[in-house]
Amino acid sequence: MRRRNFCLIFLALILSPCVALAGDPLPSWNCTGHKPQLIRFVQDAVNLNSEHYLPVSRRIAVFDGDGTLWPEQPVPIQLVFAMDELRRLAPEHPEWKDNRLIQLALNSELDELHEDLGPVLLELLNTTHTGITVEEFSLRVNRWMESAQHLRFERPYKELAYQPMLELLDYLRRHGFKTYLVASGGADFSRIWASEVCGFSPETIIGSTGNLRFEIRDEIPVLLKEPGIHFLDDYAGKPVAIHRRTGQKPVICVGNSDGDQAMLEWTTLDHSPSLGILVHHTDELREYDYDADPKHAAPLKTSLIEAEKHGWHVIDMQSEWQTIFADRPKLTP
Amino acid sequence: MRRRNFCLIFLALILSPCVALAGDPLPSWNCTGHKPQLIRFVQDAVNLNSEHYLPVSRRIAVFDGDGTLWPEQPVPIQLVFAMDELRRLAPEHPEWKDNRLIQLALNSELDELHEDLGPVLLELLNTTHTGITVEEFSLRVNRWMESAQHLRFERPYKELAYQPMLELLDYLRRHGFKTYLVASGGADFSRIWASEVCGFSPETIIGSTGNLRFEIRDEIPVLLKEPGIHFLDDYAGKPVAIHRRTGQKPVICVGNSDGDQAMLEWTTLDHSPSLGILVHHTDELREYDYDADPKHAAPLKTSLIEAEKHGWHVIDMQSEWQTIFADRPKLTP
Repeated sequence: MRRRNFCLIFLALILSPCVALAGDPLPSWNCTGHKPQLIRFVQDAVNLNSEHYLPVSRRIAVFDGDGTLWPEQPVPIQLVFAMDELRRLAPEHPEWKDNRLIQLALNSELDELHEDLGPVLLELLNTTHTGITVEEFSLRVNRWMESAQHLRFERPYKELAYQPMLELLDYLRRHGFKTYLVASGGADFSRIWASEVCGFSPETIIGSTGNLRFEIRDEIPVLLKEPGIHFLDDYAGKPVAIHRRTGQKPVICVGNSDGDQAMLEWTTLDHSPSLGILVHHTDELREYDYDADPKHAAPLKTSLIEAEKHGWHVIDMQSEWQTIFADRPKLTP
Repeated sequence: MRRRNFCLIFLALILSPCVALAGDPLPSWNCTGHKPQLIRFVQDAVNLNSEHYLPVSRRIAVFDGDGTLWPEQPVPIQLVFAMDELRRLAPEHPEWKDNRLIQLALNSELDELHEDLGPVLLELLNTTHTGITVEEFSLRVNRWMESAQHLRFERPYKELAYQPMLELLDYLRRHGFKTYLVASGGADFSRIWASEVCGFSPETIIGSTGNLRFEIRDEIPVLLKEPGIHFLDDYAGKPVAIHRRTGQKPVICVGNSDGDQAMLEWTTLDHSPSLGILVHHTDELREYDYDADPKHAAPLKTSLIEAEKHGWHVIDMQSEWQTIFADRPKLTP
């Protein structure tokens, strides 16, 4: 009898996707949470004998960016870039002295600007994201990424992707899933940022877009970034953008705020098999602890309620993620 | 001396990409035209020792649709679909009797409607392409494709892709090129049409887009096709759409009208290696003969002039294409 119990436990351990083996695809995820369900979904998707098998053409996974793949506190990373660009360019623009909104942006912390936040952000974008070609913009983002550091974590922004999410992306890609970033931030920014930080190829980046103008300048064709927003990739815009890009419904959707609720609904409601995941920021010590804080630009409120109704997996960052950021390689002196 | 000449000719034949071998990747292209140059471009692109080698990530080829991959005469295929839909739906819409534009569309040949063409087309789109979900629209396109026939060629529209272009698409795909359709027609229509007819996967279809609205209807999420144009994928819009979709510059661009000029410029000017191709409709007997005809909605005029300046390959359909359409399989009685 004892031996039988031992055998059963041994078998369960062998069969459990959560055994801490060298081949564990998600080593930074604790076994106490949703990890076994994520692994089961992928194992079924690639198993021809499973009723939840998915042909490769249907293995589409969409990920929000800010707060889902990397921190969005104290302000989203693209905003840090825009502020740094504003400071870098200010000496060349003495005329900015008379621009109240730019002066507000230059002299205040963004989280103090409740009343003027909208107009300040628009001015910031128009000042730092337009009037240049898409190539010049890419160069500026690349240059900024080389040196920009997160003050609290004291490491380059580009080393701030969540390690558990890097493992999930890698696990999905190795199992034939096509992974798309569906960012509320700008597509041109995200393309540089997220391809380096999370390995997205350029054609799998979806994001908000500004106006663009094609012209020939001195016999060289250019695409100029112009003022004005062409498409806002947030809330109900996300399923629209996913349809326009992929022409298909994803089977996995990962987000962290109410801005991701529509794409979670589009992915999972009346659609099986499918997997909805919400990252819940509950770790003040290692990252941040917030959800429905009204000061927070991307609240997590209604989708937490919907998550329960629709069986979305709410990942408790504090208890489910063993590691948040990858260890930095130690420099030899 | 004779033997040496013979050897040289033999060698030239062996090395020439235009030898009529069983392995000829473009059998429907005659050797007298640009075929050897197309093959040389691809051979160089995959040859690590060539100075024109291209890593797989850069092997991006963009193709216009109407008139480039299939006929656009006497009217573009999406317009035939819209007219057929209008006739199919008319009995359910007695109120259309009082709609002058719909009556014009129902009772006239489209090429007679010079004065009212714009408003008639818009009414046609709003009547047949909106007020339904994207799934319902796909079903309608699929159903139409099952039976719709081209009057002159007496064969289903879906068997009207140009055989030389199918061979070129296949040749490029087999050599690691990612091929995109960049249609001036609607993306939702093209996605159904061009994936069946030319093997484009859904995420490689770029086209004009209408407004879309996400909503939950009876607990089921839907994307509704709404009136109004969101983006017109033609002329200067084409490079904009290519950038937004791929984030990269193509190395091959194939078109047939002035609406493709901007994407040909974006692909080839100040960008090497690159290949620009224009299909010239010169074959009245087997297809159509037209270019700058002012009655034609998509004229080929300025880009013929630019082609000479920039070394784009102008394909003379009559002399360069041995076959236009694939032979239809004979039905056994």
